[in-house]
Amino acid sequence: MPANATSLGWLGTGRMGAAMAGRLIDAGEQITVWNRTPAKTAPLAARGAAVAGTISDLASCDIVFVMVARPDDLEQVVCGEAGLLSADRRPAVIVDCSTVSAPVSASVRAAASQAGVEFLAAPVSGNPHVVAAGGACIVASGPAATFERVRPYLEQIAAVAVHAGDGEQSRLVKLCTNLYLGMIVQALVEVTSLAEKGGTSREAFLTFLNGTVLGSDWTRRRAGDLVARDWTPTFTTELLRKDFDLGLDAARSLEVPMPVASAVYQLIQSAVGTGMRDQDFLALYDQQARIAALEPG
Amino acid sequence: MPANATSLGWLGTGRMGAAMAGRLIDAGEQITVWNRTPAKTAPLAARGAAVAGTISDLASCDIVFVMVARPDDLEQVVCGEAGLLSADRRPAVIVDCSTVSAPVSASVRAAASQAGVEFLAAPVSGNPHVVAAGGACIVASGPAATFERVRPYLEQIAAVAVHAGDGEQSRLVKLCTNLYLGMIVQALVEVTSLAEKGGTSREAFLTFLNGTVLGSDWTRRRAGDLVARDWTPTFTTELLRKDFDLGLDAARSLEVPMPVASAVYQLIQSAVGTGMRDQDFLALYDQQARIAALEPG
Amino acid sequence: MPANATSLGWLGTGRMGAAMAGRLIDAGEQITVWNRTPAKTAPLAARGAAVAGTISDLASCDIVFVMVARPDDLEQVVCGEAGLLSADRRPAVIVDCSTVSAPVSASVRAAASQAGVEFLAAPVSGNPHVVAAGGACIVASGPAATFERVRPYLEQIAAVAVHAGDGEQSRLVKLCTNLYLGMIVQALVEVTSLAEKGGTSREAFLTFLNGTVLGSDWTRRRAGDLVARDWTPTFTTELLRKDFDLGLDAARSLEVPMPVASAVYQLIQSAVGTGMRDQDFLALYDQQARIAALEPG
Amino acid sequence: MPANATSLGWLGTGRMGAAMAGRLIDAGEQITVWNRTPAKTAPLAARGAAVAGTISDLASCDIVFVMVARPDDLEQVVCGEAGLLSADRRPAVIVDCSTVSAPVSASVRAAASQAGVEFLAAPVSGNPHVVAAGGACIVASGPAATFERVRPYLEQIAAVAVHAGDGEQSRLVKLCTNLYLGMIVQALVEVTSLAEKGGTSREAFLTFLNGTVLGSDWTRRRAGDLVARDWTPTFTTELLRKDFDLGLDAARSLEVPMPVASAVYQLIQSAVGTGMRDQDFLALYDQQARIAALEPG
Repeated sequence: MPANATSLGWLGTGRMGAAMAGRLIDAGEQITVWNRTPAKTAPLAARGAAVAGTISDLASCDIVFVMVARPDDLEQVVCGEAGLLSADRRPAVIVDCSTVSAPVSASVRAAASQAGVEFLAAPVSGNPHVVAAGGACIVASGPAATFERVRPYLEQIAAVAVHAGDGEQSRLVKLCTNLYLGMIVQALVEVTSLAEKGGTSREAFLTFLNGTVLGSDWTRRRAGDLVARDWTPTFTTELLRKDFDLGLDAARSLEVPMPVASAVYQLIQSAVGTGMRDQDFLALYDQQARIAALEPG
Repeated sequence: MPANATSLGWLGTGRMGAAMAGRLIDAGEQITVWNRTPAKTAPLAARGAAVAGTISDLASCDIVFVMVARPDDLEQVVCGEAGLLSADRRPAVIVDCSTVSAPVSASVRAAASQAGVEFLAAPVSGNPHVVAAGGACIVASGPAATFERVRPYLEQIAAVAVHAGDGEQSRLVKLCTNLYLGMIVQALVEVTSLAEKGGTSREAFLTFLNGTVLGSDWTRRRAGDLVARDWTPTFTTELLRKDFDLGLDAARSLEVPMPVASAVYQLIQSAVGTGMRDQDFLALYDQQARIAALEPG
Repeated sequence: MPANATSLGWLGTGRMGAAMAGRLIDAGEQITVWNRTPAKTAPLAARGAAVAGTISDLASCDIVFVMVARPDDLEQVVCGEAGLLSADRRPAVIVDCSTVSAPVSASVRAAASQAGVEFLAAPVSGNPHVVAAGGACIVASGPAATFERVRPYLEQIAAVAVHAGDGEQSRLVKLCTNLYLGMIVQALVEVTSLAEKGGTSREAFLTFLNGTVLGSDWTRRRAGDLVARDWTPTFTTELLRKDFDLGLDAARSLEVPMPVASAVYQLIQSAVGTGMRDQDFLALYDQQARIAALEPG
Repeated sequence: MPANATSLGWLGTGRMGAAMAGRLIDAGEQITVWNRTPAKTAPLAARGAAVAGTISDLASCDIVFVMVARPDDLEQVVCGEAGLLSADRRPAVIVDCSTVSAPVSASVRAAASQAGVEFLAAPVSGNPHVVAAGGACIVASGPAATFERVRPYLEQIAAVAVHAGDGEQSRLVKLCTNLYLGMIVQALVEVTSLAEKGGTSREAFLTFLNGTVLGSDWTRRRAGDLVARDWTPTFTTELLRKDFDLGLDAARSLEVPMPVASAVYQLIQSAVGTGMRDQDFLALYDQQARIAALEPG
């Protein structure tokens, strides 16, 4: 590595982290990785990544990406006793790709800032397969200059990397997409049940809808489950409610009325209370079919 | 053309009709065309289509496709004095690709049936460019056997052709997609305004959303207008209200509650009443921005 | 009766009609009555009313009040072959106290006008007991001068008599009160279920609410049924839906968004479709309790 | 006072407290009063009340009623250094008639319980005039035996006194009535604007509505303001939003969907954001009139 090159570290090589770090390797970057369970770094090491023995070792990289499962993990690997900020030589930038709430993000950012480290909140949309295939989407927030410094690497990882603002906006943007998802699914079950009660099968209706410009990768991916009424959870109704809790709290704080989102929120609550709590949120279809007095085919 | 082959007629060669008929020619079919303004048949004639002098001449084709602009036109070219049903030799099947209401469709179907002619209601989703590129989507209703007979040609015309039922279901399915569209746009403006009030530009937000699995061809196509707040009408708020009038009437008749669609209907009515009647329905953004006390950037 | 006095006729002496006509007698008016089933005029005759043998005989009164059960009846007794307008001597004013739709009202008004007879649409709020006790409420529409002419008698009949406009406004006002009633009941079941799930009995909650300035005669009268979950119909859910059909159609025609009324309409539709069609509309409580996962005490 | 009689104390003799304490005096009770600003006890003293020099002196009464303006005040006069619980001789029961949140109430109750003092949360509905005239309404929660012990006095104070449960239910019941109030006002402005756009004046419409069984003391009291569009605050839109914040939080915790209340919440938010924050919440009429494109008369 040339003396003036930027060195990259990757903390957290679970399924998502490994897929993302793999994209950097594929793009020709030399990276150093660390994971709590060291065995999980092996596949990346086999592809050329260096492996750090401790987080402190990783901390000497210029930019360290973090991809961990839970807010507690983030706080620990960054602010904890043996965390990135405790090392003698600290990174210039920490890029957190985990999905955490705005308050947690702000608190970690403050700690980093205190230690002279820049922080980018950069959650990702996409599952490991999509990420590996280059289809991920990253929304990042933090100082614009920091974003510009990291952008080349984000664009190696993902198809889209946007800068959402100077603070915790990326967290809100993620909530917004989940609010949008909840509204889409209710919209979908309303029109599907209407077409169905009019005599059109769910399959025919969804095939048509997905053929039009209104179809999305999501509606196409889930059409089969909706046709089969397969509510095996990909994301439970209760978890969707959690995102609505957070998203509508943010809307309240910002004084943004959300007429449709709040109507959907109440419908989600109804579903949670009438047996769909742990089912996939597509089960909103069953609630709609019930009030439509529709005997689903 | 072999003696036992099916002969195809095309009535109405405006922009959409010409694009659709052109798909049949490209697929190797020999077709005969007719248009009220004869000059509009010239480009198809140049590509090999025969041109009928009168509707009666066209009526001797086995299957006649109709693509006209208005319900009145449909009634006239099918049931009128010099219409398809008045000819000595009538087609076996009429396939109406126009967008008309269920009652008009049912009335033309009844007249055709009376005359021993089968009728398929087969509206199309897609603009002429999309159609020409093979991306159209057709939803057809009428007897299943009729659909099967016509299906090979529908699949030459469009990427997707589904059978929605034995009656006027295809009309309802079209309304359902427009109800879905209205709900999408309100969902979109709610989350966009929320992200924006939180500090994320519309452009950054929509770029991210469109990068995720929730993005659709429609949201991608219209993102630029939403960013630019360009409400030059592609489809006015008042026309969207008309589709909601019809769709929610159908829902009422079928006793299907539509909690979100009806909330959106009221928001559309508000927009119509406060200056957005003749603007593109994306102007729902302005209404949302107003109640969010958002000074749009 | 002095030569220049106004003579009053009353057509329709069912329970409501008799109660209303009785108020005029009690106020000292001399009235002539007619009823399809003559026996029903006897109690009023016993109190001093003259009885007309035919509608034609009644038609010679200056002002004829009409209180019949159905729109058809109204059209027949006014416009029919042996109706008020067919008589040689016609009344100066017909005051219709029945509850009919605006179009029927407008058509009868037009016929009356054609025959040189003024028409006041004057539906009543209150049941026969309330009417007899002087607590009725009348909303009338028609020419202001006509209203002023009839007002003294309306004020003998009812505690409140208001002029709503020159046309069919009184019909719309009646629909408005029923929309308001539907919204009240949904509001009531939402807060009742919330208090109840928090641990307060329906009885305690409703006793408190009815003790505050928010209580109305209606909420007080129905509290017992709500406590007992007695859905014996006073007015069915389906009939309430009918009033919402008409009221929201009027709102659509007038381009008045009704965000809450339309949300309630969808909830009424849900109730109709899930077994409450023929129950009293207070059964909306059961729907609310169900989605609140509340085991009603 | 007989040796075995119950002695009554009253802490807080502002306008509401004085009106309530006055009811006890009128009923023949001997009471002892205390107020932070001693002068405010004079009118009650003139009517026969004893005046305590300190809260400690008051604490020797068997039952002490508290009516203070703010949660902080409640905590101070009960749990503070010189509060009721700090006295050598403590009351058997504290009855808090203030309006505070459930958490504050629970915390004061816990402190009382710790000190061996029973606590009744007993907020009041009614203004000082209504209270003085005997029209108040009290909802109390706390142990049933405590309620029974205090009930005779509550019934001297108020026309209605109900027991809502063993815990903090009375706080929730108060929120429920305010949610109901918010829904009523939106319902009212929707139907008023509809009648008005149809040609009926607000005054005529409200006179009729208030004459029917749907009219309440509240709708009658406020009709004049609505007719005059006088938004001088009695209770601001922002304060109503606060009650909706609390009420809908409670509903969320209890998993009670509130479809209409949450729709109204969003409309209140819209009103807050578009200039009605500090106006009386009846100003929701202006918002409705605006979207109805109604030029208010």
